[in-house]
Amino acid sequence: MRDATKDPASALAALRRVRRLLITSHASPDGDAIGSELALAEVAAQLGVEATIVNRDPHPANLDFLPGIERIAVSDRLPPVEEVQLVAVLECPGLDRPGFEGLERWPILNIDHHLSNEQYGAVNYLDEEAPAVGEMVLRLAEAAGVALTPTMATNLYVALVTDTGDFRYSNATPRAFQAAAQLVAAGAVPHRIAEALWEQVPARLVRLQALVLATLQLEAGGRLATITCDAGMLAQAGAFPQYTENLVNVPRAIAGVRVAAFFKAFSPGSVKVSLRSRGDIDVQAVARAFGGGGHPNAAGCTVQGTLGEVQARLRQALLPLVEVS
Amino acid sequence: MRDATKDPASALAALRRVRRLLITSHASPDGDAIGSELALAEVAAQLGVEATIVNRDPHPANLDFLPGIERIAVSDRLPPVEEVQLVAVLECPGLDRPGFEGLERWPILNIDHHLSNEQYGAVNYLDEEAPAVGEMVLRLAEAAGVALTPTMATNLYVALVTDTGDFRYSNATPRAFQAAAQLVAAGAVPHRIAEALWEQVPARLVRLQALVLATLQLEAGGRLATITCDAGMLAQAGAFPQYTENLVNVPRAIAGVRVAAFFKAFSPGSVKVSLRSRGDIDVQAVARAFGGGGHPNAAGCTVQGTLGEVQARLRQALLPLVEVS
Repeated sequence: MRDATKDPASALAALRRVRRLLITSHASPDGDAIGSELALAEVAAQLGVEATIVNRDPHPANLDFLPGIERIAVSDRLPPVEEVQLVAVLECPGLDRPGFEGLERWPILNIDHHLSNEQYGAVNYLDEEAPAVGEMVLRLAEAAGVALTPTMATNLYVALVTDTGDFRYSNATPRAFQAAAQLVAAGAVPHRIAEALWEQVPARLVRLQALVLATLQLEAGGRLATITCDAGMLAQAGAFPQYTENLVNVPRAIAGVRVAAFFKAFSPGSVKVSLRSRGDIDVQAVARAFGGGGHPNAAGCTVQGTLGEVQARLRQALLPLVEVS
Repeated sequence: MRDATKDPASALAALRRVRRLLITSHASPDGDAIGSELALAEVAAQLGVEATIVNRDPHPANLDFLPGIERIAVSDRLPPVEEVQLVAVLECPGLDRPGFEGLERWPILNIDHHLSNEQYGAVNYLDEEAPAVGEMVLRLAEAAGVALTPTMATNLYVALVTDTGDFRYSNATPRAFQAAAQLVAAGAVPHRIAEALWEQVPARLVRLQALVLATLQLEAGGRLATITCDAGMLAQAGAFPQYTENLVNVPRAIAGVRVAAFFKAFSPGSVKVSLRSRGDIDVQAVARAFGGGGHPNAAGCTVQGTLGEVQARLRQALLPLVEVS
């Protein structure tokens, strides 16, 4: 373990010492991962450093519009050792997160905002108060004195807006809004970005929503809400399993609901369960009891059994959580 | 017509000249109207001015949590002439918008950000570049040197976040983000406000969404999307007509859709139609042809006839708009 710092100076010094940089982030990359990678590559280019971006998994379709997205390679193979002098690992609390073998062959520049970061880098630029890693890349760009281009601003704004949930999460701090003001002044256009991110919904997703929301059930005086999706609904809507992501937030947002559960019976004999809770109700413990995990307010597990069996077992486990004492 | 100014100084001077202020805003008040009224009343109180707030219509239920909301009177009767020395009219392009007779008996302080404002005030504090009237009240509070309390910050943040659509509209300018940074630093808590505004959804609304979204139809190669709601669906979901507000934005956000139409057949022989378009397609002209109106990208009309008849007539009118030349 090496020392960690919130100051971008040591990260900048590490970048300035090399000519060839590899940039990566976690598997199943999100807006903060992708936006930060692309902006960091631009910062590096302005410093005369040639950057290659490699991720193990493809980006979500709604990030297709990000400027420079075509330069990201999706592969499980890393470049030859001699082609890289430093690896910037973004938004990864541990070095297992990118999903590659052999990253430790190179010196690591670790840039992250997770509290639990393992400080695995030769340089650890860590700031748990940063609303997004994108905001830390912005600070790095400022420290480097590089020009904040409209493409950099767009990528960093996407990082910020996706990681703060359109400024609706608890990381929507004054610092998040100050960064947004700066990025918009530099050429990010929030309404165009919002349209690209959230208003290119597949019609099949809307059809699936109609089918899934029709399964809504409320129990325990409206404190437990459940929805269900099976393979037949996917087929009827012409939809894919990943279209069900985020749908559990709809029952979670119902007035009075404390716990929401989403049962996904996509393959015979096994049901994926997504759990969400509000306030101090801990659904992680329930997920763990069924072999899964997550966070206190957002957890999940995969349970063997028929849909009816799994629903019955989860209800048994969840009802005590929402009982009013 | 009097001169208008973007500088809050003349508005502040007008407030300082009086002891008893009446505050009002437009009929069917929204977050910017209500949040700005409550914050202005607090600013006035700190200047030693006693403010009364009267609106013609009640506020939306999701604004119930606003600090001080209980002090807003809903009435079509204004106070006796002698009890008021000045009326602050917020977010109203014309003096007809509040829906009261007789406002012109008093001197008017006109505070608005609409381009089309008619400058009907004795003092006109107008700024079409302001992201929300709430931001203008914030500038006024700064000019007055009054303390920015957490309750004021909460009300003004609600004004800002509702008028910018969670910072997704074109008025999400650097100025909007700078105001947000300031308000959050002063005690507004974005994630609690978001939860209060958007995560107290009635279960009946979710049930209605499932029914309405199941009616989705795509035509013209996916460029025209329609959804429908009738009285039977309202009854089945146990829902009210106002629960259908904003639902038309779901088909509008489908990839490839240029025009979305929502047919609401709530009473026999007449259908309410909401129209939304993207880009430079003008649905206002169609709405006007059917006796309605609105804006180029958001318009509506009420058409006599059965649901089937009205759908057929509107399709005839809308299909040419989405034809690819």
